[in-house]
Amino acid sequence: MPLSTPVKPAGALRTIGERPLIDLIRQRFPSPPALLPVGIGDDAAVAVPPKGALEVLTTDALVEGVHFDLAFCSFADIGHKALAVNVSDIAAMGGSPRLALLSLVLPNRLMIEEVTALLDGFGGMAAEAGIALAGGNLTTTPGPLVVDVTVVGAVGPRKMLTRAGARPGDAVYVTGTLGAAATGLAWLRSAGAGPADVPDEEDLAAAVARYRRPAPRSRAGALLGRLRAASACMDLSDGLGDAARQIAAASGVGITIDAGRLPILAGVRRWNLERGVDPVRLAAGGGDDYELLFTVPSRRRGRFRTAVQQARGLPMTLIGEVTASRDVLLLRDGAEEELPAGFSHF
Amino acid sequence: MPLSTPVKPAGALRTIGERPLIDLIRQRFPSPPALLPVGIGDDAAVAVPPKGALEVLTTDALVEGVHFDLAFCSFADIGHKALAVNVSDIAAMGGSPRLALLSLVLPNRLMIEEVTALLDGFGGMAAEAGIALAGGNLTTTPGPLVVDVTVVGAVGPRKMLTRAGARPGDAVYVTGTLGAAATGLAWLRSAGAGPADVPDEEDLAAAVARYRRPAPRSRAGALLGRLRAASACMDLSDGLGDAARQIAAASGVGITIDAGRLPILAGVRRWNLERGVDPVRLAAGGGDDYELLFTVPSRRRGRFRTAVQQARGLPMTLIGEVTASRDVLLLRDGAEEELPAGFSHF
Repeated sequence: MPLSTPVKPAGALRTIGERPLIDLIRQRFPSPPALLPVGIGDDAAVAVPPKGALEVLTTDALVEGVHFDLAFCSFADIGHKALAVNVSDIAAMGGSPRLALLSLVLPNRLMIEEVTALLDGFGGMAAEAGIALAGGNLTTTPGPLVVDVTVVGAVGPRKMLTRAGARPGDAVYVTGTLGAAATGLAWLRSAGAGPADVPDEEDLAAAVARYRRPAPRSRAGALLGRLRAASACMDLSDGLGDAARQIAAASGVGITIDAGRLPILAGVRRWNLERGVDPVRLAAGGGDDYELLFTVPSRRRGRFRTAVQQARGLPMTLIGEVTASRDVLLLRDGAEEELPAGFSHF
Repeated sequence: MPLSTPVKPAGALRTIGERPLIDLIRQRFPSPPALLPVGIGDDAAVAVPPKGALEVLTTDALVEGVHFDLAFCSFADIGHKALAVNVSDIAAMGGSPRLALLSLVLPNRLMIEEVTALLDGFGGMAAEAGIALAGGNLTTTPGPLVVDVTVVGAVGPRKMLTRAGARPGDAVYVTGTLGAAATGLAWLRSAGAGPADVPDEEDLAAAVARYRRPAPRSRAGALLGRLRAASACMDLSDGLGDAARQIAAASGVGITIDAGRLPILAGVRRWNLERGVDPVRLAAGGGDDYELLFTVPSRRRGRFRTAVQQARGLPMTLIGEVTASRDVLLLRDGAEEELPAGFSHF
């Protein structure tokens, strides 16, 4: 298909026009013909469905002033994160992502360089996760920037991980570390930091990076699904407290989390204690970590060990167990309390 | 999966909470298990892909103050339209819709009754088009209401209709009538009408209905694809002028439209003439009609006649022809002029 004239190197969106912006996106995201016989630029995309697999579909929107603050994040961070949160949802089902649709709701004040930076961040995450951009939508808005992404992936029949399979006695695991993103955001706020500022301390820098550019556990989720190592799985978009409750409710079980086992970076723990914040409560209640919470039946321990070996060093930490009680509890210094709730969207 | 407590019958969203709203949506849109082994309420949906077909994917967002005005539309209208515009895109590819994802970006001021009305409108269109709701996303916003929908459909291999297949000599057709939605909006504005007001005159009432609740040409598009009756196809979301240019550019051809053949409702023509608006320019430039513009090679006339017979009375009107020139022209009273442009999003 013929491309229009190249986009001018600078200017606000209203001076650019819609077609040149679509052409810019099409140039940056060429369609692999074996997957996408029709890609960006027609009424809809046409894709070859996965062979011998089911499809996994998810959509998630980031809204300026709700999910990100342009004071702390670059446009590339926002593009990365908008795709990453969807990749995380596919991973939580045990699937592998294949393609994405990108719906941009753009304030007219945006500059073309800001949109291209957003596309760069999105493209970096797409390349990392092996995702082709199939299509999308562009519109202006009198309100905040909204980046709404749909990701479609594949999962083998009987390999999918839902929230509903946990059974009493299953072990509860989490990938990576907890409370990093919430700590990163707290540091950015307390430091009055700009989009490019990074703390000196290594663990705090990791926390800020986690907030700005979450690393979805794509490989771990696909491994847990393919190996059938987990009985239930969910990602920690809204915090451990929320995820544990969702798995417990969907599975009709209880969950007890051991506070002493929660994986928290030493520098994150220290910085929170210094500012008078309980790191355990933060780890349980803080959102945006995009780790995976999952349950492992004892008879699947062998499969789980294989998953750990193939996870390329990603820690998977035992943090609790599934109970028959329906209560979601935090065990701390020998006493049980209610597990702090996670983030609520309303 | 256990459902939470029922949603309270009234109240603003912030008093309802996210989970009860998800449960409400899940109750209204049960997942057909043969299509959706996992539906609403997990990290992602799991769907059975179409057998022996390709997938068609599209996403389109409606933004308050850009694509709709709450002064003129009900929430049910908005829900209907948000899905209809996506169904129209699938039809324009010759496909049939199967499932949808609904991403709602909701101002906190909304009342739960308004959201349920939106869901009713969406659900009516979904039932009409045979679409299952697979999942979605809910978030608040400090800005305008955004309803972002993704639809996934199926199309037989070699049955898809792109914008790129038109050849010189092909006949140009359009479904239904033109300029109705733009006229409906103009009437609403001129009358200072409310969301429930309807004009007395029959054609104007049809025009207002077209603006509020566009009827995507789902059956016609699928027929044109299945019968391989068309060489190129596009929907008229942004007007005839835009669509003709897109098909011409993608196909590397020109298009000449005959002004005298444009299908315009008599009452629409009369009302526009009375207010000093050229109905032909309005029909060419007005957006939101969601008719299909398509091209038919002479050797496929027999297939096209079959499509017309099976289209249940939907008019398909010959309005022009494809030329070798690359120009997109309007032939009027024996003279050629440039075809008026359609709606631009920026």
